[in-house]
Amino acid sequence: MTRYFEDYVPGLTVDCGSFSMSEAEIIAFAKEYDPQPFHVDPVEAEDGPFGGLIASGWHTTSMMMRQLVEFYVSPESSLGAAGVDEIRWPRPVRPGDTLHVRATVLEARRSASKPDRGIVKSLAELTNSDGDLVMKVTAINFIRLRNPLA
Amino acid sequence: MTRYFEDYVPGLTVDCGSFSMSEAEIIAFAKEYDPQPFHVDPVEAEDGPFGGLIASGWHTTSMMMRQLVEFYVSPESSLGAAGVDEIRWPRPVRPGDTLHVRATVLEARRSASKPDRGIVKSLAELTNSDGDLVMKVTAINFIRLRNPLA
Repeated sequence: MTRYFEDYVPGLTVDCGSFSMSEAEIIAFAKEYDPQPFHVDPVEAEDGPFGGLIASGWHTTSMMMRQLVEFYVSPESSLGAAGVDEIRWPRPVRPGDTLHVRATVLEARRSASKPDRGIVKSLAELTNSDGDLVMKVTAINFIRLRNPLA
Repeated sequence: MTRYFEDYVPGLTVDCGSFSMSEAEIIAFAKEYDPQPFHVDPVEAEDGPFGGLIASGWHTTSMMMRQLVEFYVSPESSLGAAGVDEIRWPRPVRPGDTLHVRATVLEARRSASKPDRGIVKSLAELTNSDGDLVMKVTAINFIRLRNPLA
């Protein structure tokens, strides 16, 4: 469905589906962007701080973004992001974990300087199949209004 | 050089080198993780909110991490990240922009619960070749002490 600023009402929660990352995908991403031993080397990772290989937090964040593009933002109205207020990675993500993504609108206000858009603050929460929170992100997006003259 | 917790003294600034992303790299990353029109389609992007193709903020963040792994954190002491306090993308990143990464230690304190480590808060700033800030990130990392008994 196409959403515009008017549709992002604080309290709205959107189910953004699930994904998982294989060991090979975790290693490939980390070799390119985050080549720390516990992300790229399963043998060294066994003796490392997490007792096994874990995904780069930036890999998890990027995979989350894919779900948000599919389920939460719309190409007709998305005007990019100002940034993120907080990311937390309370638990490691391991190969094969299925992560569920849920997005909730926290705040929505019209831009003071640009009448065609609003600023939407959203909380994305990722949980594993045990229901444990593995990541939360508070993102700030610019979203086009459906009716800028209203 | 290998850094331990004791080396991350507030005020320390580390030059973390430069990188750039080609149009093909920007599109490939975004097709996988952030397939919005202004990240994946140069023609549509021309008429879009940025007047041309721009990199996904998560691509820029991941490339930043590669520089931090090479220049700022050490495999001997890095125990992963708790999260990020803030990311801001004040200006778009375009194909071929050369981005310079600088990291500054903001805070460093020993963990109250785990005597082998400390918590280091760092500011990473990315500037383009005009000296304009394109991204800043405040990251929170767990770092092993060189001398836990000191």
